[in-house]
Amino acid sequence: MPKSIPADSVGLVAPQTAHFDEPIELVCGQTLPHFDLIYETYGKLNAKRDNALLFCHALSGDHHAAGYHSMEDRKPGWWDGYIGPGKAFDTRRYFVVCPNNLGGCKGSTGPNTINPKTGKFYGPDFPLFTVKDWVNSQKQLMDSIGINQWAAVVGGSLGGMQVLQWAIDYPDKLRHALVIAAAPRLSAQNIGFNEVARQAILSDPEFHGGHYYEHNVVPRRGLMLARMLGHITYLSDDAMRAQFGRDLQTGRLSYDFDVQFQVESYLRHQGSSFVERFDANTYLLMTKALDYFDPAADFEGGLAEALSQTVAKFLVISFTSDWRFAPSRSTEIVKALTDAQRQVSYAEVESSEGHDAFLLPNSYYTDVLNAYMAGV
Amino acid sequence: MPKSIPADSVGLVAPQTAHFDEPIELVCGQTLPHFDLIYETYGKLNAKRDNALLFCHALSGDHHAAGYHSMEDRKPGWWDGYIGPGKAFDTRRYFVVCPNNLGGCKGSTGPNTINPKTGKFYGPDFPLFTVKDWVNSQKQLMDSIGINQWAAVVGGSLGGMQVLQWAIDYPDKLRHALVIAAAPRLSAQNIGFNEVARQAILSDPEFHGGHYYEHNVVPRRGLMLARMLGHITYLSDDAMRAQFGRDLQTGRLSYDFDVQFQVESYLRHQGSSFVERFDANTYLLMTKALDYFDPAADFEGGLAEALSQTVAKFLVISFTSDWRFAPSRSTEIVKALTDAQRQVSYAEVESSEGHDAFLLPNSYYTDVLNAYMAGV
Repeated sequence: MPKSIPADSVGLVAPQTAHFDEPIELVCGQTLPHFDLIYETYGKLNAKRDNALLFCHALSGDHHAAGYHSMEDRKPGWWDGYIGPGKAFDTRRYFVVCPNNLGGCKGSTGPNTINPKTGKFYGPDFPLFTVKDWVNSQKQLMDSIGINQWAAVVGGSLGGMQVLQWAIDYPDKLRHALVIAAAPRLSAQNIGFNEVARQAILSDPEFHGGHYYEHNVVPRRGLMLARMLGHITYLSDDAMRAQFGRDLQTGRLSYDFDVQFQVESYLRHQGSSFVERFDANTYLLMTKALDYFDPAADFEGGLAEALSQTVAKFLVISFTSDWRFAPSRSTEIVKALTDAQRQVSYAEVESSEGHDAFLLPNSYYTDVLNAYMAGV
Repeated sequence: MPKSIPADSVGLVAPQTAHFDEPIELVCGQTLPHFDLIYETYGKLNAKRDNALLFCHALSGDHHAAGYHSMEDRKPGWWDGYIGPGKAFDTRRYFVVCPNNLGGCKGSTGPNTINPKTGKFYGPDFPLFTVKDWVNSQKQLMDSIGINQWAAVVGGSLGGMQVLQWAIDYPDKLRHALVIAAAPRLSAQNIGFNEVARQAILSDPEFHGGHYYEHNVVPRRGLMLARMLGHITYLSDDAMRAQFGRDLQTGRLSYDFDVQFQVESYLRHQGSSFVERFDANTYLLMTKALDYFDPAADFEGGLAEALSQTVAKFLVISFTSDWRFAPSRSTEIVKALTDAQRQVSYAEVESSEGHDAFLLPNSYYTDVLNAYMAGV
């Protein structure tokens, strides 16, 4: 619990929900008859309505990017270190919009909401959505708020993929695109890890074909395994060495299968706390959105051709120890933008913290964002 | 099925079993009243009994390192490419001994054999063993065959760890130590992956606390997940890109959770075929042997001090794209050996095949082994 809210926080915030009554057609061919997006905003939209930033969240993120929901909150939103008065995304200057994506589990229409056709939870009947679908639904949110052009669209990891898609699909709707710790498509290794996570959930007997809501259970074991595995890929080998090394939880070897090393304790804790706050069907769908993302495929494999659709100026950022989406994946994007003769700045930020670095405090990273945003 | 057995194969081979009637005390404090080791031999022990090589297997390996069990065998033993007449480990010259480790599931005493105390399978009551225990049991095998000193002890991955332990614990019992694709201890990341694999098995409802034999089931889902995850860490990102890329199994996206990308099909196949040939309790115990291995810990953390116990000459080999046990892990061993003023040769082999490279054909690797073995 924050005794008092820090001066550079956006403070107490409350989400709001936008209802969209028109059907939305998805890339998979299915249609949702109507949908909701829950979102938060920080700062004020100016009279010219040209100071809005859209933040796109990553796999397990949501609309709560900054500030606190109550004085009792233990932690602020997921990107509070970079959003607030005087911070990189300065809410005295910008109006920040952050939605929970379609198919999410924090209030937007998704598997854990009611399917109007059946009166029951969507569950496994929720259609498989893509990054393109997210961008289309975010565009409807944009229209509903009355924004004609984003000053910037910003996102890390899967969020960065949404930024790329925005710049390709709605080129004149954003002036700047900030693509952080992302990749132009998943590698076979990335897909492999996602597939293990999915199989863990799908094979959990309490998954019940995705209808676990009606059984009053959750596929706890599967979702926990998926999250444990995810966490290993979010951290660097070095970060894990520094944080845990081979330190023992109890000081001595027990020669059984109880928690032995601190890293085991950390992973089990991350796994089991995730189960309390995330929906397994959403997790499955999010990993598929990751696997399927491949904007170059729409242009016969040419990433430069895909990105030649764009008008925005780009900032691409990677982190040295990120092995999930390594710097080389970011430079693929930079090279394609250069080939397409687009304006792009690139920073490779020194960090030992792996993929998670994009969420964590880092002074050079802050400097890069500050410097770039000064020119927006 | 080999239509005919190649001329450079050790040919048709049959395992034999050594029975040890004396109790063996394990590092964990428990004792096995007696135990068996199943093993294979290739080549002939010479009159001076000084041409014997011991091969130590890795996590999912066994005693069948070379040759065929029958003319119907689809594949030869796991290291057939390097063991045979005229090969790196030339069976015209050497007598090769390869046991299935204590606690294994291919015929040596392990969880899937009968506990004499209960008349039932050991199952989860099989004691947790360490690399040191394996070496002690292999020493008994050595004595029973009548070998006084190994010309070399050889192993890759977890096998390489046994080689290190041999050289430390029985310094005068081997002249050469070949440590391939190994590490002096696991990193936190390595332990993390093992822990996810263990939790997959332990949380499978068909694990039944390890007593699944009596329920006529196996924890198929858990063991499959463990193996799928393992395979990702055995392959390099580049190898997966080259082998599968983002190629689709059916040529088009299906927008469901069926196999979509070829890498998913590969991993599911590897996982499900592993379930047919491996025991889950053994898998759990083997991962613990990996986690616990840390010879430096017996010498207050000093790897050089541990290795100063050794007398053997060392060959250490690593593979450039191995990220499970990266070349830097091998150079830790080399540095400690140099600090301990021991004789060591080191080769970093260029390979795109990741950790699995130690099992695969590679001309430079072959040259290194040939050159070294010429001097043994």
